[in-house]
Amino acid sequence: MKTARGRVIAGTFFHAPSLGNVEVLEAALITVDERGTISAVERRDSPAYRRMHAAAAAAGTLETVPSGSYVLPGFVDLHIHAPQYPQLGKALDCPLEEWLARYTFPLEARYADVAFAHKAYHALVSDLAANGTTTAVMYGTIHQAANRVLVDACLEGGLRAFVGKVAMDNPHTCPEYYRDSSSEAALAGTQALIEYVKSRNGDGLVHPVVTPRFIPSCTEATLQGLAAMGRAQGCHFQTHCSESDWQHRYALERYGRSDAESLDWFGLMSERTILAHASLLSPRDMDLVKSRGSAIAHCPLSNVYFSNAVFPLRAALAKGLRVGLGTDISAGPSVSLFDTLRMCIASSRLLEEGVDPDLPPQRRGRKDARIDWRTAFFIATAGGADALGLRTGRFMPGNAFDAMIVDTQAHEGSIRIFDEIDTIEDVLAKILYGASRRNIVAVYVAGRAVA
Amino acid sequence: MKTARGRVIAGTFFHAPSLGNVEVLEAALITVDERGTISAVERRDSPAYRRMHAAAAAAGTLETVPSGSYVLPGFVDLHIHAPQYPQLGKALDCPLEEWLARYTFPLEARYADVAFAHKAYHALVSDLAANGTTTAVMYGTIHQAANRVLVDACLEGGLRAFVGKVAMDNPHTCPEYYRDSSSEAALAGTQALIEYVKSRNGDGLVHPVVTPRFIPSCTEATLQGLAAMGRAQGCHFQTHCSESDWQHRYALERYGRSDAESLDWFGLMSERTILAHASLLSPRDMDLVKSRGSAIAHCPLSNVYFSNAVFPLRAALAKGLRVGLGTDISAGPSVSLFDTLRMCIASSRLLEEGVDPDLPPQRRGRKDARIDWRTAFFIATAGGADALGLRTGRFMPGNAFDAMIVDTQAHEGSIRIFDEIDTIEDVLAKILYGASRRNIVAVYVAGRAVA
Repeated sequence: MKTARGRVIAGTFFHAPSLGNVEVLEAALITVDERGTISAVERRDSPAYRRMHAAAAAAGTLETVPSGSYVLPGFVDLHIHAPQYPQLGKALDCPLEEWLARYTFPLEARYADVAFAHKAYHALVSDLAANGTTTAVMYGTIHQAANRVLVDACLEGGLRAFVGKVAMDNPHTCPEYYRDSSSEAALAGTQALIEYVKSRNGDGLVHPVVTPRFIPSCTEATLQGLAAMGRAQGCHFQTHCSESDWQHRYALERYGRSDAESLDWFGLMSERTILAHASLLSPRDMDLVKSRGSAIAHCPLSNVYFSNAVFPLRAALAKGLRVGLGTDISAGPSVSLFDTLRMCIASSRLLEEGVDPDLPPQRRGRKDARIDWRTAFFIATAGGADALGLRTGRFMPGNAFDAMIVDTQAHEGSIRIFDEIDTIEDVLAKILYGASRRNIVAVYVAGRAVA
Repeated sequence: MKTARGRVIAGTFFHAPSLGNVEVLEAALITVDERGTISAVERRDSPAYRRMHAAAAAAGTLETVPSGSYVLPGFVDLHIHAPQYPQLGKALDCPLEEWLARYTFPLEARYADVAFAHKAYHALVSDLAANGTTTAVMYGTIHQAANRVLVDACLEGGLRAFVGKVAMDNPHTCPEYYRDSSSEAALAGTQALIEYVKSRNGDGLVHPVVTPRFIPSCTEATLQGLAAMGRAQGCHFQTHCSESDWQHRYALERYGRSDAESLDWFGLMSERTILAHASLLSPRDMDLVKSRGSAIAHCPLSNVYFSNAVFPLRAALAKGLRVGLGTDISAGPSVSLFDTLRMCIASSRLLEEGVDPDLPPQRRGRKDARIDWRTAFFIATAGGADALGLRTGRFMPGNAFDAMIVDTQAHEGSIRIFDEIDTIEDVLAKILYGASRRNIVAVYVAGRAVA
């Protein structure tokens, strides 16, 4: 279907309306209005189903999802370094601080070249959408022109996005060839991108996000200034928090406070803040995050390479923290939240079981850490939407129709359903464990086809 | 190209001729004879290159791999439970022994139905080949007719394969509805499949493999009888070894010996033995495996769910053990050795770093455990071939041309190359971290196209 706007969609829908719970809307009807908002969800056994189906068929607005295809909410990717996309799948063999200096800062510095930015950002936006991501929270670079290219690419691609000018002005940690020349420059650049986004954003798809790279990259004036700026203008914030032992120690040594406490002290921990990683948060840090209402972008693929530990997701959820998933392109080597969701499950199992076979079983792991596929599905969809305060991620009236259609029978896809043994919930499990890009046959943001 | 037999292939080839070393044969020529064996490998700067290129062009036997496509050795998958393919991507939420009783034995018992076997086995063989696997080592079920269907599916599909009738006759651990009725039945069934494979196998593609499921499933008479049978007939063996705490303890309690020692005591540890998992092998067990010349099928995807620890691959390689990779379908949720190779890298990093953030860094992990992508690539190709004693996995004269062509530019694929920053080795890293089925545009076994 070329658009979902103004259509009544007949099909089977999967979503996770609350933590750990999957709902199957089997052979249901979803009505999407002309602005892309869901106006009705009717199960097959509801009184209105037959009438609505007949009316849509008569009006020519009925769209029937083919047998073997299923509708899922679009994914929310809470943590992407857009300029790093060209190095996806390489340079994963050194620690975070070396990776930044050796590979990542030189690559990001290339975005002074607008043509390079155009090529990379259009590829990224296209690939995110094609992989089922409908909302992307992104770091840009320090470059004004390239950041505008990224905003425009999201608008042209129809992707729901939060885009931030990365602020990094600490001369002790940022190389001379790639840093804001002063705190004033970091703040003015951030303000300029906020204004650009607001000027371009007729339909509410793209939002600004205030983006101090992380504490080690910023001067105190910039951290304070950005906090004031974002709060005054009601912006979201994004930054990194306790990603690795190195980052964790850095704040402790510089401020005598944990990374989370330092961010809070600078005023950056708000209800609109996304903290990437948080792998090494202490229980006390988690309480602080909870009390401030900030959310966490869990990035299990990149944590394997750069975090020195597995984020204890289940402990965070038990405390009531809001958590979504992030690919962390390119520290995570995949653009797909399917891959991310799979590693979320896998690394939680390794956290629970432990890893070293030379330790006795009772000393190997950490009890009650596992995440099942139902929880991971929630985190990747509704959990991410909740982290941002968006009305997406669930199929319910009033929410935007941000969704993907997965064809389990796609030629050259990677799913096999066996009717002899598979229940309808098994179909969803097989999609979550097995789908590749080829299986994602359509993607919609606010009802508009974006892939 | 429809076949590689009798062709001279011009292209860029990647392989890993020795542990940890990748070789790029850039714009090289590989000549494949009429039986699918490589007869010459010429680099562009070799004296014979120009003459060979001209001769092949004149003879109409030159095949040029398109720009953006690259040739890799086919993957060797050392551990597959063929009958479990229909449950790939589900039923991953319980421990090994419960998973067997609740999901897996009931599914395997269905293969009394030959039509079901036909459907499942043809799907599996087709999907293995399409994902770049050119050699598959497989467990069947206890059913003669279904096992023959599996052998025939491999022969029809052109897949290089080792197929075994699973032997499992211990009434204390195997359910009445799915076990060999006696030790005699287990042995006679194994012998019958060996003879069937030999009778059908004109071109040497498919081999029999003696397959005691694992120690808990078999009576002593069966373990001893299978060892004698396999040794007398020069067969390969496959079984599981120390996969989980439960399996590890089982042998200790029943025989007062470790699982590896028990297998050896029964005569099952030969130079032609593939031991699946081995996650909990002690250093002493590793020495035993090494002294017997047996090989290990490392199954990192399934180990996440069922092994209670990460196999210390690097320690095994340091001891000189032969190791290849296994998907362990369906305890591992992917048919792809690309996915398996990625988890091989990722779980080795988690083993090295440790997982629990509440432990101090120095107590969290296990030093020197990481596997880089070069090593993982070797293990998935030449390492697996070496484990089986096959002449495949490397592009060199005398080896069979078992290979895949990966198109990095495939529409709906999952790789992005940026010429501005990517070296030729980066291209390989991006293929290994990024390729999905859609990128694999051709697969050859002994020069014959199989996908």
